[in-house]
Parts: sequence; structure tokens; C-alpha cells
Amino acid sequence: MAFREIEPQKALTFIEPGPVVLVTTFDGKKHNVMTLTWTCPVNFDNDFILATGPWNHSFRALTETKECVVCIPPPSLLRRAVLAGTVSGKDADKFSSLGFTAVGAKAVKACLIAECSACLECTVTDYLPEYSLLVIHCNRVVVNDDVDARICHAVGDGTFFADGEKFVYRDEMKDKLPPGL
Amino acid sequence: MAFREIEPQKALTFIEPGPVVLVTTFDGKKHNVMTLTWTCPVNFDNDFILATGPWNHSFRALTETKECVVCIPPPSLLRRAVLAGTVSGKDADKFSSLGFTAVGAKAVKACLIAECSACLECTVTDYLPEYSLLVIHCNRVVVNDDVDARICHAVGDGTFFADGEKFVYRDEMKDKLPPGL
Repeated sequence: MAFREIEPQKALTFIEPGPVVLVTTFDGKKHNVMTLTWTCPVNFDNDFILATGPWNHSFRALTETKECVVCIPPPSLLRRAVLAGTVSGKDADKFSSLGFTAVGAKAVKACLIAECSACLECTVTDYLPEYSLLVIHCNRVVVNDDVDARICHAVGDGTFFADGEKFVYRDEMKDKLPPGL
Repeated sequence: MAFREIEPQKALTFIEPGPVVLVTTFDGKKHNVMTLTWTCPVNFDNDFILATGPWNHSFRALTETKECVVCIPPPSLLRRAVLAGTVSGKDADKFSSLGFTAVGAKAVKACLIAECSACLECTVTDYLPEYSLLVIHCNRVVVNDDVDARICHAVGDGTFFADGEKFVYRDEMKDKLPPGL
């Protein structure tokens, strides 16, 4: 349950694989969480996009507080992450109903989720309404070495895959890797 | 080596998981291919973004011909996909140097890659210069059932994971699944 801080430029390594993520917000009254699978890095400066919009209850807290935490659930949390994506924070306290443990973050008021393998403390920096893309910047990354670090990937049809076989091609792409990765 | 056409709305299921992709283009003279790992769905109408820009040689062909094919390499092709990302099409014929087999597409002049498990024939519909995001629309999807369908995910640090354990939560999210998925 102990989170360990790592370098912010490592935020990329959690978003690039196309993870299922839990995005927490705090609107001043209540902690909320939504499930998202449409994310993308946009540069090597810890800026990412989340494809989301006003149809999600969390969107108002995201754009008003300009803060969130992007948490990476392990496979054992995946079913609850899916369920978190099927109810609205307007109607429910998803932390208590789904058994997620809120832990205080450092850079933002939105919370970490103790059951996740990594959490990215982020600020919302822009919104592109034409395609409903929220731009976020990651300021702080914490990882929990006690939690299964396999990332879960949504297929989009209700099936999911956890990371399987690993391949290392660091030598092949050493000229392409930014410092620190 | 035989590709089979499936419904265009299934294009989502290849992009949502965060795949390593091979993007082919044809500039009128030469077939080219680039490797990309920064992609994201933006809606359920087969529109996707590719985070790429003028620094990639393929960018000119993408914006001038407004066509490309997004191909999904199996794990056995991953090392060559990584290598394709380390040389510029300006200097090399990557199809012959990497042993990729070009196959004619139907909706676009850019080609399919015979060794890939799926290919998405796409048109380029927009470009957002502020964040260097290319918007593409998929018109036709073909899959090759003879090729390993596991998707490869880049971590961003030179390591990669192929799809492993599978989870099915279709019942849990049945109200969220668009028709046809």
C-alpha cells in the first residue's frame, strides 16, 4: 500500500501502452472516479490527451478544478474498473460501492487509489472541443511495488488483455529513447 | 496471407488497446512505412488520432495524399517494426530492407502488409498542429486469420508486451457497447 515516487518523465511508460485507467477527481465536496481507455501521449514532456467530454459526470470537475489523478489498475481490479465505468458519480459514491481506497495525493486534491500499481498526479491544461480531447500534464508519478504491474488493455468490445510476453528492444531503438527512459 | 474484410466499426478494437502500428503511405512514387505507438480513438465513428508531425518523413505523404493504411504487426514482426521506426523512408526502401510484403489495398493507394494480422484502410481528415495530431477515418478493415492476432504494446522505454491473459466483461458493460461490437 506504500506508493514510491519516480521521475515524472516515466509517466509516458504508463500511458503509451494503451492502459485501462481510473481517473479520479475532487469537485470540492466528493471524490469521484471514472474509467477511461482512450488516452494518448502527445510529446515527451509528460503531456497526454484523454478523449472525454461533457457527457461524463467527471468532466465538470476536470475542467473546473483542472486537476485529476490517472491511476493504473492491476488485472485483479479490472472487473471493478469496468463496473466503475457503468455507473455515474452523479448517482453513487463509487469509492465505497466499489471498495476503492482513497489515498491523499501530493500535487493535487484528487486522490490516489491504493489498489492501483501506479498513479499520475496531473493538471488539466487544455481542452479541444472539436474532438473532445482533454490535455493533461503529469507533475508527479508514484508506483506501488506491492501491486501487480501488468497493464490491462481494453479491446473495446467488452474483452480485455493483460500484458503477456515481454520483448526488450532497447538496443535497437537506443537513438530514439529520450533521456531517463 | 489472405485478408478477410470485416465491418469498419471493428476498427476501434484494433486501436483502443494501444497497439504498435505500421502506417503505410504511397507518395505517388514509393511505398513507405513508419512505426507509431501514439494513437487514440476519438469517437465510435471510426475516427482516430495519430500523434505525429512534420519531423516524420511519412508526414508529407500523409497530408498530401490524405491516405494511409494502419497495420497491426504480430509479436513475430515486432523487432522489424521497431527497426522500421529507426530509419527514415527518405533514405531507404523499408519494404525490401525489412522484408515486408506489400499487398494492394482497395480503398486507398497505400498498401497492406501481408505479414500483419489486421490492416485499416484510412483517409486523413484533419490535422491539429497545436499538438501535432493527425485525424484519420477508417473506411475498410481486413484481418488475416493465419497471423497471430496478439497485439503488441510499447512501454515507451524500449520494452514491449504482447497481449497475455484475456478477460471478458461483456455482460458488465453491455449497456456501454455500441451496436456491432
